[in-house]
Amino acid sequence: MPNTFGHLFRITTWGESHGGGVGVVVDGCPPRLPLSEEDIQRELDRRKPGQSRLTTQRKEGDRVEILSGIFEGRTLGTPILLWVRNEDARPEAYEQMRATFRPSHADYTYQAKYGVRNWMGGGRASARETVGRVAGGAVAGQFLRRVFPSLEVVAYVSEVHGFPAPEPPSALNAQSIEANPLRWPDPTTLSHAIGLVDEARKAGDSVGGVISCRVRGMPVGLGEPVFDKLDADLAKAMLSIPAAKGFELGSGFAGARLRGSEHNDPFYCEAGRVRTRTNFSGGVQGGISNGEDLFFRVALKPVATISLPQETVTEKGEPTVLRARGRHDPCVLPRAVPIVEAMTRLVLADHALRQKALEWEPLR
Amino acid sequence: MPNTFGHLFRITTWGESHGGGVGVVVDGCPPRLPLSEEDIQRELDRRKPGQSRLTTQRKEGDRVEILSGIFEGRTLGTPILLWVRNEDARPEAYEQMRATFRPSHADYTYQAKYGVRNWMGGGRASARETVGRVAGGAVAGQFLRRVFPSLEVVAYVSEVHGFPAPEPPSALNAQSIEANPLRWPDPTTLSHAIGLVDEARKAGDSVGGVISCRVRGMPVGLGEPVFDKLDADLAKAMLSIPAAKGFELGSGFAGARLRGSEHNDPFYCEAGRVRTRTNFSGGVQGGISNGEDLFFRVALKPVATISLPQETVTEKGEPTVLRARGRHDPCVLPRAVPIVEAMTRLVLADHALRQKALEWEPLR
Amino acid sequence: MPNTFGHLFRITTWGESHGGGVGVVVDGCPPRLPLSEEDIQRELDRRKPGQSRLTTQRKEGDRVEILSGIFEGRTLGTPILLWVRNEDARPEAYEQMRATFRPSHADYTYQAKYGVRNWMGGGRASARETVGRVAGGAVAGQFLRRVFPSLEVVAYVSEVHGFPAPEPPSALNAQSIEANPLRWPDPTTLSHAIGLVDEARKAGDSVGGVISCRVRGMPVGLGEPVFDKLDADLAKAMLSIPAAKGFELGSGFAGARLRGSEHNDPFYCEAGRVRTRTNFSGGVQGGISNGEDLFFRVALKPVATISLPQETVTEKGEPTVLRARGRHDPCVLPRAVPIVEAMTRLVLADHALRQKALEWEPLR
Amino acid sequence: MPNTFGHLFRITTWGESHGGGVGVVVDGCPPRLPLSEEDIQRELDRRKPGQSRLTTQRKEGDRVEILSGIFEGRTLGTPILLWVRNEDARPEAYEQMRATFRPSHADYTYQAKYGVRNWMGGGRASARETVGRVAGGAVAGQFLRRVFPSLEVVAYVSEVHGFPAPEPPSALNAQSIEANPLRWPDPTTLSHAIGLVDEARKAGDSVGGVISCRVRGMPVGLGEPVFDKLDADLAKAMLSIPAAKGFELGSGFAGARLRGSEHNDPFYCEAGRVRTRTNFSGGVQGGISNGEDLFFRVALKPVATISLPQETVTEKGEPTVLRARGRHDPCVLPRAVPIVEAMTRLVLADHALRQKALEWEPLR
Repeated sequence: MPNTFGHLFRITTWGESHGGGVGVVVDGCPPRLPLSEEDIQRELDRRKPGQSRLTTQRKEGDRVEILSGIFEGRTLGTPILLWVRNEDARPEAYEQMRATFRPSHADYTYQAKYGVRNWMGGGRASARETVGRVAGGAVAGQFLRRVFPSLEVVAYVSEVHGFPAPEPPSALNAQSIEANPLRWPDPTTLSHAIGLVDEARKAGDSVGGVISCRVRGMPVGLGEPVFDKLDADLAKAMLSIPAAKGFELGSGFAGARLRGSEHNDPFYCEAGRVRTRTNFSGGVQGGISNGEDLFFRVALKPVATISLPQETVTEKGEPTVLRARGRHDPCVLPRAVPIVEAMTRLVLADHALRQKALEWEPLR
Repeated sequence: MPNTFGHLFRITTWGESHGGGVGVVVDGCPPRLPLSEEDIQRELDRRKPGQSRLTTQRKEGDRVEILSGIFEGRTLGTPILLWVRNEDARPEAYEQMRATFRPSHADYTYQAKYGVRNWMGGGRASARETVGRVAGGAVAGQFLRRVFPSLEVVAYVSEVHGFPAPEPPSALNAQSIEANPLRWPDPTTLSHAIGLVDEARKAGDSVGGVISCRVRGMPVGLGEPVFDKLDADLAKAMLSIPAAKGFELGSGFAGARLRGSEHNDPFYCEAGRVRTRTNFSGGVQGGISNGEDLFFRVALKPVATISLPQETVTEKGEPTVLRARGRHDPCVLPRAVPIVEAMTRLVLADHALRQKALEWEPLR
Repeated sequence: MPNTFGHLFRITTWGESHGGGVGVVVDGCPPRLPLSEEDIQRELDRRKPGQSRLTTQRKEGDRVEILSGIFEGRTLGTPILLWVRNEDARPEAYEQMRATFRPSHADYTYQAKYGVRNWMGGGRASARETVGRVAGGAVAGQFLRRVFPSLEVVAYVSEVHGFPAPEPPSALNAQSIEANPLRWPDPTTLSHAIGLVDEARKAGDSVGGVISCRVRGMPVGLGEPVFDKLDADLAKAMLSIPAAKGFELGSGFAGARLRGSEHNDPFYCEAGRVRTRTNFSGGVQGGISNGEDLFFRVALKPVATISLPQETVTEKGEPTVLRARGRHDPCVLPRAVPIVEAMTRLVLADHALRQKALEWEPLR
Repeated sequence: MPNTFGHLFRITTWGESHGGGVGVVVDGCPPRLPLSEEDIQRELDRRKPGQSRLTTQRKEGDRVEILSGIFEGRTLGTPILLWVRNEDARPEAYEQMRATFRPSHADYTYQAKYGVRNWMGGGRASARETVGRVAGGAVAGQFLRRVFPSLEVVAYVSEVHGFPAPEPPSALNAQSIEANPLRWPDPTTLSHAIGLVDEARKAGDSVGGVISCRVRGMPVGLGEPVFDKLDADLAKAMLSIPAAKGFELGSGFAGARLRGSEHNDPFYCEAGRVRTRTNFSGGVQGGISNGEDLFFRVALKPVATISLPQETVTEKGEPTVLRARGRHDPCVLPRAVPIVEAMTRLVLADHALRQKALEWEPLR
């Protein structure tokens, strides 16, 4: 099910970077959920290109339209079709890629797999495909807000070009993160971090980094053994994001350096609720949420499209040098923050429905 | 589909640590594949407990039986039931866990999710569940060997308690890895690495580490956009393994510190085949294999069961101190190597079938 | 997966009768298949309302648009979004249904299930939803034409209001069926059959009937045991069509009256191919196609919307009498013919891909 | 997913007629459900061969064993492995089928599809595969009993060799049906019906017939548009049963002969509940249950194995005459009754879970 994600709360995304448009079918959303185009537009605006000099200058209105599934402002329980027209496509800018494989892009692999590809802008491998994810994630977000009012998903850029943000303050502030163009959690180091992106931009180069995500107010019991562990589904969700190269939950790779006596999270009881004193587990034990904050990190490689000349080959296998034109992000991280949040919400909504299906009063 | 993995080549595992047995149904394996109990036993023996002092002393014959799907030494195309009886269970050793939640185990989350749990040995959250994965992976391995004769999957322990193995030699040697109890790739540092595990064992403690996996002889074109990217499915597969806390492909988290000009893999042509000069991509671009070695790493936390006393709570929420008895691994890494390989083979076999379904001569 | 059909060749339909439009995402279609809007429009025109006085007078251009998945006239292997705008909606005609449950419609069950419904025209339960099926089936048809050039799917109305068409001639003629407004296979009884529909129409009533479907040029080996038998998947496909009440394959209910010695299809060999002398099996044995014609019948109830007054209740449970306004089909059968064909093609394309995935040269 | 049925409440069956055994993995069953081997054995005994002279004389203890998923008499929420050993296999009786295709069996199609087959007794195409279905259905039955205490599934033989049982009395009596070897609902015509089977048996022949199924005490709201309609899933479930050739819900094929004014089910209100005066709909409208009795019929062909000589071909395509030996049912109907019930319960349990997943208090 290559273009479908989720088991009960499901999205199917469609659309190429250059073509009629991009969108998503959201299927399995419970009925009677209040939902408007504004609820979705708000999230789409956060991933939109052209927000600042840190991101691509491609300009798109990205106005979402709802074609089905909503009636008198509420979900019907039927599939919700959301889409955005492609407006500012300039295929001529991609003409040079027609016969040339861009290094570390999907041009070659798509061609090898399918024997054909939409060479204008990367087709499905374009970050533009994520419009459908963010739109779908916005629906999941509306659902979560209603059924778990205290749940909050906050992602942010925690490392850029090797420079880590200082440990986020205990009260991570979503407003302050959103207020800066890098979605960086620490005001004191913000200008330094932005400087790293600017430097790469001026050099015609790009930088990578890490996005962290924290979910507060988690319900206990989401996630399923054995294969559909909450962290396994999150790992798949995150690695499915273009440019993602790694995922770690809780202590992650650093935790692998500890001993069990250091790493185990001692249990205690607080106000009748079982808690852990530390959270190396990242909120998941045995694949199931334990009510502590969900916490994970996603590594994103530097954007593959750069203006610097690069060695590559043509479709016919002849060596050539590529000098990319077109408008691209020197750093994909800030725009990827709402994508990480969207995929997180989709995983949580799906597992919330799956857990609900098991809860039967007569079996108490 | 909590206990099922794969879309076309699928396994469904079943069984608790303490109960009648553990096993797997392999569904979707192509017909006419030669397959014997020995083919499966060979892999099971590699994950078996009691192989050395580095692993748990629990002794189990772990003899696999095939109950269906094979006729006259070949697969029928019908479901293959493989199972292993539970023999050396000593439930009394677990009596103390009946009412106590072991820190960083799944006792609490299973209880919270299901309202019931098999407190003997962890039930489905026990590493014993992986018998089914390894058995299923052995079937996938037989399939891959036949259809991609040059494909080779080699996993090994590449870091233990923070001590990294030196860069593996260009010709990673599967035999030499298998010959030592830690499945460590570098003979010169082997005794130091083993010493780290021994130290933890003597202290009643445990250590974590990293498993690396390399696949040579990869076909081009496996993996599907958008959600079922080859790396996304591998990430899910790896994070579904007990104790896994992180996954990275190719350059991974380190690659996030580079610039695009450093990180992009230049294309060139060799003997009519498109190759890349570097392999920061780890063999996957746009979610699809490009024919270079697949390379990824998995972080495993230190085993949660230790003999040292630990703070925890009872089922009723009362504070208590746990001193675990029973036989456990001070270091799960060497036994996890065949599990990582099994899950890798399952992902590859599944995507091989999915790609095959798209290849139609009349559409050339 | 309520709105998705198929395992490898999959469609997800969306859209309500009254709303922005209706459409489908086709996912899993192999790449490089020539496909144009005309290929799809041709089939949509066959199910379009207003074709003759036998069907609803609602007029819709039903012009299909392709928004994704096609590039330079060929499929990309990525999701194909097809849609049709809703144009001639007259919601005021449905105002009376706002608070009244139409007998034998889905108004009450949707309301009971979801607690909300799009009362304009039946929402997802409207026959308009089948636009997505027919569009998706047209894509499947293009695929089948290419890979099985001799395969032909022909459905027709074989019974109307209890009047059966005489046994179809050995050479069922698709052109002659298509040439008459009832899609009736027998010219000699055509005017009588049409008369039955006309009578009902004049009386403000409706009639039901049976659609038969025959597939010639079937490949051997499609269909899978145990649950995904070819006939089981066809049964589901057919019963999912609005107004369908029954399905039978080959001898069907009549075959249940025979003895084994009468019903068994003797094998013989013809030109090196295994054939059966009779075809009570309807082309499927053990859930797998045997190369003989696939043959099945689908019972369709009389359309529920009639002009005659009917006893019913309001949303509040008060008794009332409904006199339906609006434009409706006195007989849904001729328009259902392309829907039956579309669903048949979707089942066949899906199983063709599934079978392809199992065929590996090295396992010969 | 050829051997898996269900979306949330799922079974995967495995095992050949002749081999180690047959069984099922039940996955997705909610936790804390009381379940014992007796609960399952009771249903298995009803499908067991050798119950009377009407069925095959093959004798099997068919003792079920639970290998996983149960702890202290209750389900754990983990996969439940149920199996039955094969005991009374006499492969030598099948030696003649080694190279000969039995007419209207799956020998030829399995061979053509897979290029290999277990020729002993039909392999997966044997009715013995249904052991797994009945065992899985017994688990579903336990679940339904707990959560819908007034729900009752009753199937019975309603036609044998063309002889229909008189209209079942308003109070269909499950005990009286179970008390006779044909599972026939009408005592006055029982001996005549049994006579028809006996006649065929003496002639070395077999007879077909129809099984009817009625579900009383149905909850409202089960079933999902568009493809996973309750009746569509039932149709698939029934057609997946060996020997099934047809399915009809409510009025079925007979309803196709009526006019809308005769066929529509008028609504009325009774004790605050919306009811229908007639039930031509068979308890399902728009694919969703309306609370009236679910009612459907399944056509079963005469058993293909008969003692009379039959024309057929060998694997090499040479003409031959088959005289079947071995022990077989002259009439599969009474043993198919518990299979129909099992598949019905599996569909209902699955849809109950799916509906549960949509019901969220905050969205009321």
